[in-house]
Amino acid sequence: MAKEYVFGVDLGGTEIKFGLFRLEKELEKELERTLIGKWSVKTNKTSNGEKVISQIAEETEKKAKEKGIDKNSVYGIGLCVPGPVDKYGLVRGCVNLGWGYKKAAEELQNITGVKCAVLNDADAAGLGEAVYGSGRKYKNIVMATIGTGIGGAVIYNGKVLSGSRGNAGEIGHFKVNINETEKCTCGKCGCLEQYASARGILNYAKENLKNYSSSLLNDISNFTVKDMAQCAQKGDELCTAAFDTAGKYIGLGLSYMAGAFDPDVFVIGGGVSNAGDVILKPVKEYFDLYSFNTESETEILPAVLGNDAGIYGACEYVMQKEDWKK
Amino acid sequence: MAKEYVFGVDLGGTEIKFGLFRLEKELEKELERTLIGKWSVKTNKTSNGEKVISQIAEETEKKAKEKGIDKNSVYGIGLCVPGPVDKYGLVRGCVNLGWGYKKAAEELQNITGVKCAVLNDADAAGLGEAVYGSGRKYKNIVMATIGTGIGGAVIYNGKVLSGSRGNAGEIGHFKVNINETEKCTCGKCGCLEQYASARGILNYAKENLKNYSSSLLNDISNFTVKDMAQCAQKGDELCTAAFDTAGKYIGLGLSYMAGAFDPDVFVIGGGVSNAGDVILKPVKEYFDLYSFNTESETEILPAVLGNDAGIYGACEYVMQKEDWKK
Repeated sequence: MAKEYVFGVDLGGTEIKFGLFRLEKELEKELERTLIGKWSVKTNKTSNGEKVISQIAEETEKKAKEKGIDKNSVYGIGLCVPGPVDKYGLVRGCVNLGWGYKKAAEELQNITGVKCAVLNDADAAGLGEAVYGSGRKYKNIVMATIGTGIGGAVIYNGKVLSGSRGNAGEIGHFKVNINETEKCTCGKCGCLEQYASARGILNYAKENLKNYSSSLLNDISNFTVKDMAQCAQKGDELCTAAFDTAGKYIGLGLSYMAGAFDPDVFVIGGGVSNAGDVILKPVKEYFDLYSFNTESETEILPAVLGNDAGIYGACEYVMQKEDWKK
Repeated sequence: MAKEYVFGVDLGGTEIKFGLFRLEKELEKELERTLIGKWSVKTNKTSNGEKVISQIAEETEKKAKEKGIDKNSVYGIGLCVPGPVDKYGLVRGCVNLGWGYKKAAEELQNITGVKCAVLNDADAAGLGEAVYGSGRKYKNIVMATIGTGIGGAVIYNGKVLSGSRGNAGEIGHFKVNINETEKCTCGKCGCLEQYASARGILNYAKENLKNYSSSLLNDISNFTVKDMAQCAQKGDELCTAAFDTAGKYIGLGLSYMAGAFDPDVFVIGGGVSNAGDVILKPVKEYFDLYSFNTESETEILPAVLGNDAGIYGACEYVMQKEDWKK
């Protein structure tokens, strides 16, 4: 039976996002994928996340039934997870789900009877943006996802480069301040994530608020990064300084990525990137200052797929499984 | 006629090194290469290096004649140069030779009638060590060459990853001190090369000598890095501090490479690496301190091919030209 569909699944600690893609051409020829269905459910984290895999299986089976799709016409299910995945497809723990080591793809395949593949969620977002988003004109992309934490992904010749231990693209833990004494969540000190994540930007504002009595933040209780971006747009000095500091360190981190990998383009996603030029302008300025001469010309683009990057990337990852076509 | 020989040529500003390799098996099967001849000549830099290409052609032709090798049995000439090479094989200037942009491989091919390929010299050294040297058991290698300057190369799946502008692996210009005001040779400030190259290590000693009246260096006029390594082995505090500082920044630079690319192994070559544990011990300690958790286990090995790494890498680069076999 012709393989006409792919599921892309983005497993998070709070919700699971699903995408159903239709393949518009024959597998052997050039492919087009169209997202024909998208939904999400709350992650069932009971019993250390033991029920998550069967939850995913039920959701995909329910959707297939609803759409009248035969199991044999599904090419595969791509699953991205919030934890490291090694080159054998073993998930090496997901703290947010309560998972230890887990053969997630194998388990899902055993229940559904459909071929499954698993990858890291930051890698999936990078792959999604590289193939369907801001990076679609390029072959070599580095994506940085600036959210609560900072993740990264390296796409080389259109494919995920995950490295020997699955750590390639770990931009969030570049040591940008070797004199720092406060610890990062990773246990070491001075990581990019400590200064430039949403958490880092909020901390900067909270720590410096006393020195900026005229800051607009004084009138907002429990302000967010979104509030800060709006204040910065209005010229608030504290908020501008906070994004400038974050941008300085992100620009420095990107300069290391440029010196290591020299990509065609950088793509910046995640919640903090929604601040737009408030964050992107200092990122570009400092990248230009810190990067090696000819690398300074590397473009830095905002991501465009938003929360869908993961399901697109998970779908693409499955489509790249050449040996499944045999 | 069976293709049985390859020339590997390492073009430097001072001398040109040549290697003649014999292919021990058929091209279509697994290959073994044996270095059967090695020599060097002084680089003819007259007229802005215009004579270098014909000099290389003459040397290879002379050697072939001497060994009774027919031109048609030479698979190719691999040439590595001290400057950036783009993905089209265009040499984008070599300051040490007086070259601007140059189609070096094409020119050499036109004179010799033998297929030629060109790559950057740091990439060639990395490829040589990756395939024939310290990295031969691994697929993903980052090589750092610590000499007068600091160069680097990234080898991914056994092949050179040179990046979009040929800058991948530019470890020497990672900004390790964003507060530096003195300029690096690249025109920017705070590069790894300023602190950890032979020049940087010597500068450290010269600048701090006045504070170490009992240092053994006080008795050596025009001391070298080699002298400093010997003094450090004898417990000299100034020399130990100089290598510790260099090792700190190299370890930091490698931590960025690990976070970006996550290689199987690091290989450290170049003149400074001859100092052995005097430099490698601090490199490993600081790498452990600065790198992301699971990356800390990445091995750091000394290079083993010495000055031959370039000719081995240039030979290997030619052998990887799959389309030449058609």
